[in-house]
Amino acid sequence: MNPFRFQNPTALYYGSGQIEQHLETEVKKYGDRVLLVYGGGSIKSTGLYDKVLGILGKASITVYELPGIEPNPRLSSVNKGISICRENQVDLILAVGGGSVIDAAKAIAGGVKYEGNVWDFYTRRARAEDALPLGTILTLSATGSEMNGTSVISNLETEEKRSTSALALYPRFSFCDPANTLTVPKNQTVYGIVDMMSHVFEQYFTHTEHVMLQEQMCESLLRTIIAHAKPVLEDPANYHGREALMYCSTMALNGIISMGVEPDWACHAIEHVISAYYDIPHGGGLAIVFPNWMKHVASGKEAKFARLAVQVFDIDAKGKSEQQLAFAGIAAVRSFFDEIGAPRTLGDYGIGEERIEEMAAEAAKGWGAGTIGNFQKLTKSDIESILRMCLTK
Amino acid sequence: MNPFRFQNPTALYYGSGQIEQHLETEVKKYGDRVLLVYGGGSIKSTGLYDKVLGILGKASITVYELPGIEPNPRLSSVNKGISICRENQVDLILAVGGGSVIDAAKAIAGGVKYEGNVWDFYTRRARAEDALPLGTILTLSATGSEMNGTSVISNLETEEKRSTSALALYPRFSFCDPANTLTVPKNQTVYGIVDMMSHVFEQYFTHTEHVMLQEQMCESLLRTIIAHAKPVLEDPANYHGREALMYCSTMALNGIISMGVEPDWACHAIEHVISAYYDIPHGGGLAIVFPNWMKHVASGKEAKFARLAVQVFDIDAKGKSEQQLAFAGIAAVRSFFDEIGAPRTLGDYGIGEERIEEMAAEAAKGWGAGTIGNFQKLTKSDIESILRMCLTK
Repeated sequence: MNPFRFQNPTALYYGSGQIEQHLETEVKKYGDRVLLVYGGGSIKSTGLYDKVLGILGKASITVYELPGIEPNPRLSSVNKGISICRENQVDLILAVGGGSVIDAAKAIAGGVKYEGNVWDFYTRRARAEDALPLGTILTLSATGSEMNGTSVISNLETEEKRSTSALALYPRFSFCDPANTLTVPKNQTVYGIVDMMSHVFEQYFTHTEHVMLQEQMCESLLRTIIAHAKPVLEDPANYHGREALMYCSTMALNGIISMGVEPDWACHAIEHVISAYYDIPHGGGLAIVFPNWMKHVASGKEAKFARLAVQVFDIDAKGKSEQQLAFAGIAAVRSFFDEIGAPRTLGDYGIGEERIEEMAAEAAKGWGAGTIGNFQKLTKSDIESILRMCLTK
Repeated sequence: MNPFRFQNPTALYYGSGQIEQHLETEVKKYGDRVLLVYGGGSIKSTGLYDKVLGILGKASITVYELPGIEPNPRLSSVNKGISICRENQVDLILAVGGGSVIDAAKAIAGGVKYEGNVWDFYTRRARAEDALPLGTILTLSATGSEMNGTSVISNLETEEKRSTSALALYPRFSFCDPANTLTVPKNQTVYGIVDMMSHVFEQYFTHTEHVMLQEQMCESLLRTIIAHAKPVLEDPANYHGREALMYCSTMALNGIISMGVEPDWACHAIEHVISAYYDIPHGGGLAIVFPNWMKHVASGKEAKFARLAVQVFDIDAKGKSEQQLAFAGIAAVRSFFDEIGAPRTLGDYGIGEERIEEMAAEAAKGWGAGTIGNFQKLTKSDIESILRMCLTK
């Protein structure tokens, strides 16, 4: 176990009825001028928008709106939000949506208090030391952004998709009601499942030793996600299934399973480049990259993949070598992604080999050291090789 | 899963070297007048006292001291601490010790800001709404008090041992360095192991449904504690074993495994009465009470105990009825406690049947409803029956 600092100040309200009971009180702690940030308008068709505006209206809160946050949220939207907050002395940002909406709201919250260009946070030129208070109402189980200090933003001008993390960017409160995810369409549900599983993988595949509890918590998360994925896809209104997925998505990236663990994050770095170049869904990209990353790095690390096979996919170890087991585990990940209808190759998004080398070079320089990843350090050549594997079934 | 609110603001510093690097900065956030609270002086023989005073001295912090906190911390010590803080305008309380020291420090922190008698928090007459900032340096893996808002205090005058919980009582920061537990004596180590396992049991035995992840996290904790207990008892300087136990003790009672779960807490209520009457070690009392509680409530709840047998103690289910498995699981808990040298009967502490009925009556009124526990509600008669089982091997 590595020495670590952990602090997660977000107040979580989980389950149905919490918004009705506690949203007004939480909002009023911060003031009476709120910027409501949301996405494509699904919260209007589900009635959540009206519910939230009703509660804020009854509490005499002045509400400003920033709709239209994109699935890969854009720096341009963030800058629009910063202007609205500054012009109207907004006290609290309330993000109603999935990870993209929350990530954009975090960028706005940090940007309002920063004199320079907010993109500086994402290029590591600065760090958010202060931020407007932020609250969230989650409508999509995927990114875990509701209980962490990370924000991922795309800069279309520079074709970059980058992340930043800071204590100041943690939501003050987050309302997570599974009922608000019952109408999430199938493809978004699939991307969410892949995203939360990928978050666990990034922390499960570590070379840090003496992390028995963390490792078993990762396996518990993966088993719980897998157990509930198909029931939810077959019956989108399956409340308890949606609840389990929502809870797992929060727990997968609130910092708990990476306490004392050096995480990997190479696949996210690679996927961010693909998304930046082609604007594909994050979860879709991860479904393509992760199994190929596993095949690429498995050699010499069979024990961990064999463990995945046995503990998560319940594969019988009898009569199998460690390497056979390891590859059975990797195949089980791919099969599971296939079964839930996740994409398999870059071709599924019409992406060919044209920019593979360019993307590999871009991904490799992501962390400034010429390599990415910790479980195994990947060079540009490794990344290129993984991306080429992503071209074929 | 039940609706829940979760918030845990404590900043954790885990691992070796963190005190040296970060204690000064953390303390200085709150001021320059510190009350150092500690216990029987073991921190002097280990050198931790000198290390902490050295760091505070170099930072020109004025230090007041409250030594001698008892294993079941007394209200009288708490009141002494409150006076010191008030007389000297203390800015921060720094608790250096185990759960008893931290619990006393929490009571002092809350009491300083409360005009009435601090015991009101423990009799539910009042709640700590505000508190002096509190930091901790943990020296014993057991109670989890380093990352929660709970404090347990004994009132010798009224023969009561009671708890209170409040957001204001969470430590602002806690330093958990396994190296500070390497010299913990065997009996204290055993009590700590029983205590942390009991905390998991209290949350594992729930009738709340749809809690797959929480249930598996509990099992992960129990397996990790059991795996490291004997290696640590055989080699007290086993750093990685101490580290695993320390981490499990924090995770067992920082609120994570009870998210959305109705916990039980009957055994703690019973043990608190025994400790209040006879001043025995908390972990020792729990080792006696818990297996007997399990036998008493198992009927009709075999499935959960059978699960414990298979998932935690790796007992082969083949050819066994659910009831056989359940009792094999309970027997495995008792055997494990025996193997690590935990006490088995009240007689081990010289306690006879003289006050059994009185203790049962006292425990039953603990929560004001005439029963305690949630997994199974226990009446006075149930508690008396469990206590009588505790008299015999």
